[in-house]
Amino acid sequence: MSADTCTIGLLGHGTVGSAFADLVAARADDITRITGRRPQIGGILTRSLGDADAILAGSDIVVELMGGVETARDLVLRALRSGTPVVTANKQLVSRHGPELAQAAREGGVALRYEAAVAGIVPVVRVLGESLAGAQVDRVHGIVNGTTNFILSQMAATGATYADALREAQELGYAEADPTEDVSGADAAAKMAILARLAFGHWVHLDDVVFEGIEHVTADDMAYARQFDLALKLVGTAERVGDGLSVRVHPAFLPVGHPLASVDGPFNAVTIESAAITEITLSGPGAGGPQTASAVLGDVVSAMIGAPGPPEPHAPAVIGSGVASAFYVHLEVADRPGVLAQVAERLGLQGISVKSVIQDGLGETARLVIVTHTVSEQDFAAALDLIRALDVVRAVRAIRVIDEHFS
Amino acid sequence: MSADTCTIGLLGHGTVGSAFADLVAARADDITRITGRRPQIGGILTRSLGDADAILAGSDIVVELMGGVETARDLVLRALRSGTPVVTANKQLVSRHGPELAQAAREGGVALRYEAAVAGIVPVVRVLGESLAGAQVDRVHGIVNGTTNFILSQMAATGATYADALREAQELGYAEADPTEDVSGADAAAKMAILARLAFGHWVHLDDVVFEGIEHVTADDMAYARQFDLALKLVGTAERVGDGLSVRVHPAFLPVGHPLASVDGPFNAVTIESAAITEITLSGPGAGGPQTASAVLGDVVSAMIGAPGPPEPHAPAVIGSGVASAFYVHLEVADRPGVLAQVAERLGLQGISVKSVIQDGLGETARLVIVTHTVSEQDFAAALDLIRALDVVRAVRAIRVIDEHFS
Repeated sequence: MSADTCTIGLLGHGTVGSAFADLVAARADDITRITGRRPQIGGILTRSLGDADAILAGSDIVVELMGGVETARDLVLRALRSGTPVVTANKQLVSRHGPELAQAAREGGVALRYEAAVAGIVPVVRVLGESLAGAQVDRVHGIVNGTTNFILSQMAATGATYADALREAQELGYAEADPTEDVSGADAAAKMAILARLAFGHWVHLDDVVFEGIEHVTADDMAYARQFDLALKLVGTAERVGDGLSVRVHPAFLPVGHPLASVDGPFNAVTIESAAITEITLSGPGAGGPQTASAVLGDVVSAMIGAPGPPEPHAPAVIGSGVASAFYVHLEVADRPGVLAQVAERLGLQGISVKSVIQDGLGETARLVIVTHTVSEQDFAAALDLIRALDVVRAVRAIRVIDEHFS
Repeated sequence: MSADTCTIGLLGHGTVGSAFADLVAARADDITRITGRRPQIGGILTRSLGDADAILAGSDIVVELMGGVETARDLVLRALRSGTPVVTANKQLVSRHGPELAQAAREGGVALRYEAAVAGIVPVVRVLGESLAGAQVDRVHGIVNGTTNFILSQMAATGATYADALREAQELGYAEADPTEDVSGADAAAKMAILARLAFGHWVHLDDVVFEGIEHVTADDMAYARQFDLALKLVGTAERVGDGLSVRVHPAFLPVGHPLASVDGPFNAVTIESAAITEITLSGPGAGGPQTASAVLGDVVSAMIGAPGPPEPHAPAVIGSGVASAFYVHLEVADRPGVLAQVAERLGLQGISVKSVIQDGLGETARLVIVTHTVSEQDFAAALDLIRALDVVRAVRAIRVIDEHFS
């Protein structure tokens, strides 16, 4: 810990941890020029090696890349409370224990930074926390999981089924052997909780984020999306609703002109809307090892020059209800006259107006695909219950449509 | 200057200055929550009103939105040297006098921030200066002038001539009565000088930026662009070339899959490439009054929380030669056999290989449109001289093609 060096304690040495250690070595000269101090990895803690106490005591900055929640939480809290700034890429940790970590950072008088926890190298934490600190943000939409975006892009491009596209993602290393965390939307939900906090200045706990995965998306949905000129993505949304916030992750159709609609492959992108600035979009590769390591190093450089971390709110968010969406509804119905009229009547009863309909006969069964205008989600759920109760209806599925155009 | 308030001295009260004053009032509560101090406009200096000495002496932060170079330079230098942080949106000032301003900031021990000088609310200064401080940037491409992007988008969408699209931009307030600064590429050149410095860590003076405007783009060029599946934009490029840098602004064709190709209307977008992270793209509205004011306020918030400004290099850049590009070449030639062979031979002599050709007879004259593969710009210029010397050639124009694909 001399004045001319900055000793980094590295917790975790997996894919990201070792990419980070390599990057520190490769970029040490430039970082010395920018910060006036030479960064060096002091100690490394892995599951089997290293002395946590010695590493915490001997570090100018702690970088947490171990994953998991409990051990990481304990070590990060100890570092912060003893006055050592911490950089982490751990979205579970930050989205579950944000207030406690922020309190520890205040006690220690140091910064907690977590750019890499959200969208890899896409610098959305910095932009929301700093550039837009002066703007009132109205809504954030994000594609914040590269695995699911790769799978959906493959399904759209090749007509593959969900199972085949998932297998391809696994073969290419974009999906893990157990893909649940990604495909269920849980990973995206943790990231959206963090983004919502930064955008709106209120704590949002992971438990307050509603999420739904992509496991039930079919090749048929993709084919209809093409017909309606829509792109299907796993979209996270954080927005003001009445006096509260709504934070959610759903598969959603986007009109082709939407900035997120053309984001294909294992990429991330976030659109931030504000009345004063219309909207800005940030996009780039999702969280591979080198990208995440690069985002972590950006945070380390900021910590070395003494920049404060993102602003941390004191009050928890009020979770609002009354969300409105447009919907794509896919029905399998008995192929006989008057079915469309019955379905349309149920929608009409709840005040839901239809934008377009496609009907395909399949012999016994017909397929009815309806896109609605924007409606209250509560009214839509009620209409769907009425439609399910019709004896001519064999199966019903609904996917949200984000019906906004820009520029 | 009490401990609980932050007094802002505002130099300039035009469109951006008054939007900024309104925004400070509207957002004062949120800024107080984030920074612990309440921002207030102390004094305002206009051409006819205000006492510069009193404003500089009584301000915690100086915000320079007056434009012009000499008076702004004098006041900003005085503020920085006396230890008052400065936020400016003045690209001419920063691209011409960057080293002197940075030296004054070091003397005063305070930050100079200029996010709004480059791409309005699109936070490219912060991203290059902070998020990517740990990455080695290889190239930056930017659409950094909203006026020219609006004009080119209108020409592409409607088939309008340059003159008509310019007139429309003026009627809508996207272009000034004297549009020279924008349409000549000079405004984009100043912004690219600043971006190049941040990306590569060397001073680049505005005089070292080669630029070319959009005045000579024709409706015909747009029609051929569609045929070749290309989008024509005014693109600024900063990249490493050999041991030096090349910074330039030219009209350029982009393949439709390029992240900048779909940026239409008065928008800005910047793509940052680095081997480690592939590329990230930032896009949003260009510099209108409210957008610029919002970017300025983001910098003010950073200055209030004591964040350091963008890292400032000490060494000037070496301007490299040996740039390579692909080209679109538009020739008017006598309509007789063998002309294409003569032109192709001249290209071949300089080792330039042709990717595609379209030939249209117009009676007396034929039109020959050629797209080359990537070649040395020097070799291309030599080939163009040979072609111009052919007696069958009546007119030649060339536009660069950025032939890179991502993702």
